[in-house]
Amino acid sequence: MAVNFTVFEDFKAVSGVRLGVAKSHVRYADRDDMVVIELAEGTEVAGVFTTNAFCAAPVQICKHHLGIKAPRYLLINTGNANAGTGKSGYANAVKSCELMAAAGQCTAAEVLPFSTGVIGEPLNMPAFERGIPAALDDLNADNWARAAKGIMTTDTLPKGFSQQASVGGKTVTVTGISKGAGMIMPNMATMLGFIATDAGVSPDILQTWCRELADCSFNRITIDGDTSTNDSCMLMATGQSGVQIDDAASAEARQVFALLKEAFQVLAQAIVRDGEGATKFVTVRVEDAAAQKEALDVAYTVAHSPLVKTAMFASDANWGRILAAVGRSGVENFDLDKVQIYLDDVQIVEDGGRCDSYTEESGAAVFRQSEFTIRILLGRGRVSEQLWTTDLSHEYVSINADYRS
Amino acid sequence: MAVNFTVFEDFKAVSGVRLGVAKSHVRYADRDDMVVIELAEGTEVAGVFTTNAFCAAPVQICKHHLGIKAPRYLLINTGNANAGTGKSGYANAVKSCELMAAAGQCTAAEVLPFSTGVIGEPLNMPAFERGIPAALDDLNADNWARAAKGIMTTDTLPKGFSQQASVGGKTVTVTGISKGAGMIMPNMATMLGFIATDAGVSPDILQTWCRELADCSFNRITIDGDTSTNDSCMLMATGQSGVQIDDAASAEARQVFALLKEAFQVLAQAIVRDGEGATKFVTVRVEDAAAQKEALDVAYTVAHSPLVKTAMFASDANWGRILAAVGRSGVENFDLDKVQIYLDDVQIVEDGGRCDSYTEESGAAVFRQSEFTIRILLGRGRVSEQLWTTDLSHEYVSINADYRS
Repeated sequence: MAVNFTVFEDFKAVSGVRLGVAKSHVRYADRDDMVVIELAEGTEVAGVFTTNAFCAAPVQICKHHLGIKAPRYLLINTGNANAGTGKSGYANAVKSCELMAAAGQCTAAEVLPFSTGVIGEPLNMPAFERGIPAALDDLNADNWARAAKGIMTTDTLPKGFSQQASVGGKTVTVTGISKGAGMIMPNMATMLGFIATDAGVSPDILQTWCRELADCSFNRITIDGDTSTNDSCMLMATGQSGVQIDDAASAEARQVFALLKEAFQVLAQAIVRDGEGATKFVTVRVEDAAAQKEALDVAYTVAHSPLVKTAMFASDANWGRILAAVGRSGVENFDLDKVQIYLDDVQIVEDGGRCDSYTEESGAAVFRQSEFTIRILLGRGRVSEQLWTTDLSHEYVSINADYRS
Repeated sequence: MAVNFTVFEDFKAVSGVRLGVAKSHVRYADRDDMVVIELAEGTEVAGVFTTNAFCAAPVQICKHHLGIKAPRYLLINTGNANAGTGKSGYANAVKSCELMAAAGQCTAAEVLPFSTGVIGEPLNMPAFERGIPAALDDLNADNWARAAKGIMTTDTLPKGFSQQASVGGKTVTVTGISKGAGMIMPNMATMLGFIATDAGVSPDILQTWCRELADCSFNRITIDGDTSTNDSCMLMATGQSGVQIDDAASAEARQVFALLKEAFQVLAQAIVRDGEGATKFVTVRVEDAAAQKEALDVAYTVAHSPLVKTAMFASDANWGRILAAVGRSGVENFDLDKVQIYLDDVQIVEDGGRCDSYTEESGAAVFRQSEFTIRILLGRGRVSEQLWTTDLSHEYVSINADYRS
C-alpha cells in the first residue's frame, strides 16, 4: 500500500562503480541478500550515520575505516543487523571485512560493512564465505536495480533514482538506492542510502555535502520516531566523468549539488511512501521560526503525535490535535496569537483559534488526499524547516505487532 | 477493556467538601456533565497545570485566581474543553466564574474553572446558567461517586479513591477523583485530578506537596505522549479533621503525605489502566542513572516508542526494540556495555547484547501478562525514576481515527 510510489527502472550506470548481488543465505534460503559495491581507485566516499548511542558493530567499523583509507568495497547484507550483539558481533563484522578484503585483494580497512535485519542474532558467517565470491563474480555497472532489491528488508518495493545532466559540457550521472520501511525496522532495523556520482568531489566538500544532503532528506523523514541502530547514508564520487569539484561555490558545484539533492530527497521520500502501513504522504512545514531547533521541534512533535497521525489516517482534519502538538513542542515564550496553520492552502488556525473562514468540509477535502502539507507559521522569525511523514494506520499496528510471529 | 481496573465504591466524605452534579446540556442532552465542588472557608488549595504553551482559557484563569484568594468553588464541565477558542473563549470562562460567584455568593476570583471535552468549539453558556443552580441544589458531602462520573469524557469507567487513617489520634480522610483516558484526549482534551483531605496543610507545604505528588503520579503516566491543553491536578486541604501540618518534616506530615501519595498514584494509574485501547499496564523503571533528566528521557523514550508499544500489544518480548529506544534517548557518553534490561525478574540484556541466560519463552511469559515491569539499569549513577504506560493496540487506532465521525 505504498503511497503514490512508482518503482524506478531507468538506472544509469555510474562510471567507476560496479555492483554484485548474491544469495548468501544470511537468513533466508532463496533471496538476494548480499550486495557488494566496488569502487574504482580514486573514489572519494563520505558518510552520515545513526545518532543512536547503541550503533551497531558495522556502523562503528564504517566510521573507523572511513578515517583510515579511501574505501574500495561496500559490503551490505540484509536479514541480520548485527546490532545488540556485543563483542562477538564486532568481531564478526571485522571478520566480514577481512573476508571481503581477501576476495577483493585490498586491505580490510578499505571495506565498509553494512548490515540490516534482525537485531541481536549472531551473524551467520558461512553466509559471507558463500556470498562474497558469488557477489564478486556478479559485478556489473548495470546491477543497480538488482542491488535495490538485494538490500530490502520489509520494504514492499525497491527504491532507486538516477539522472544525468550536462555539467560544463560533460555528462554527470547520479544514481542511488535506499531501503527502510519503518524509520527503524524493529528487528529489521535500519534505513540505508547509497548514492554515487561520476563527478569528482574533493573530500572536504563531499563530507560537507553528505551532511547537508542528509539533513534535507534522510534526516527529515519520520515514520514512527524511532532511530535505528544501523542507519547509514553513503555518498560516493568516482570522478570518472572528468568533472571535478574543488570549489563548493562554483556554478558546476551548485549544479552537481542540485542533482544529488534531488536524488537524496527522492530516495528518502520513497522510504516514507513505502512506510509501514502508510496510506498518506504528508509534508509538515514550519515557517517563521526563530531558530532551526524550534522549527524542527515543532515539526517533529506534530509528525510524531499519534493523535495527529490517526487523524490523518481517518481523513479527519482535526486542527485541535495539531494545535495541541504545536503547544507541547517545548518552544519557550510562545505567542499563541501569532500562530497560523494551513492544510495546503486552507487556513485552519489564526489568533490561537479556529479561523473564521474555515469549514470542516474544506479541511476534510485536504485530508482526504493521499498527499498534502500541514504548514505551521510561528510568527517568531525567518527560519523554515520541513519533513515528510505518514499516518498511523491499523496496518502499522498489524505489521509491528505481528512481525516476529 | 480497562486493565485490572476495579471501580472504586467506598468513598469517604471529606469534612468541609460538598459536591453537586447536574445535567447542564453543555454538549449532550442527558448526562451529568457539570460538577461543583464547594469548599468550606479556610480550605487551602494548590494546583499543578499543563505545560502545554496553548493552555486553555480555564487553566489560565485558575492560575490567576489561585494567586488572588483562597477558592470557595471549583466549577467543572465536561463536553467542551474551551481550548483553542481565543479571546471569546477566555471571556466565556470569566463569565462562567461570574455566574458561579453570583449563585454561590462569593467573588469570581474565588471560583476555579475546569473544562474538558472538544477543542475549538465555543462554550455553551446557557448550559452554565442551567447547570450551576442545579449543581448547587445537589450539594452533598457524599456525592464523590457521582462526581467521578460527571467529569468523564471518553473514559470507560469512573476513577476514584478514598482512605482514612489515624494521625496523632485523629481520623484523617483522603478522597479523590480523576479522569482522562488518553494522555490527551484529542478533542476531548484533558487529564483532571481532584484530591481533598480534611487535614490542614499550610499553603507553602501544600503547593510543594502538590508538585511532588504530581511528579510521582500524574506526571509519570503516558499513553500516547501527548500533553493536553487542559491538564490540571488540584489538592485541597480543609483542616476540619483537626490535624494541622505546619512542619513538613514531622511524623504527622509524613503520614498525611503517604496517604495522599497513594491516592495520587492510584488515581493516575487508573487513567493508564483505562487508557485508549489499553490491553497492558506496564511500569517502565530506569535505575542507576546519573541524573533525573536522563532517567526520565530513557523511560519516556521507551514508553513512547510505537515499536515497543506494539510489541507489548503482541506479547512479543522484543528486546531489540527496547535496546534501540534506550540508545536513541539522547543520553550522552552512553556506555552500552553497562546497560542491563530486565522484564520483571528475567534479564534480557547484559553487556550490550542479549543475556546468555535469556530465552524467548521466558520473555514472552512476562509480556503475556496484563501487568509487568520493564527495568533498565544504566550503570551511570544512583538516580531512579519510573512511569506507567500502556501498549498500542488496534483499538487505540480505531478510537482515535473514528472519534469525531
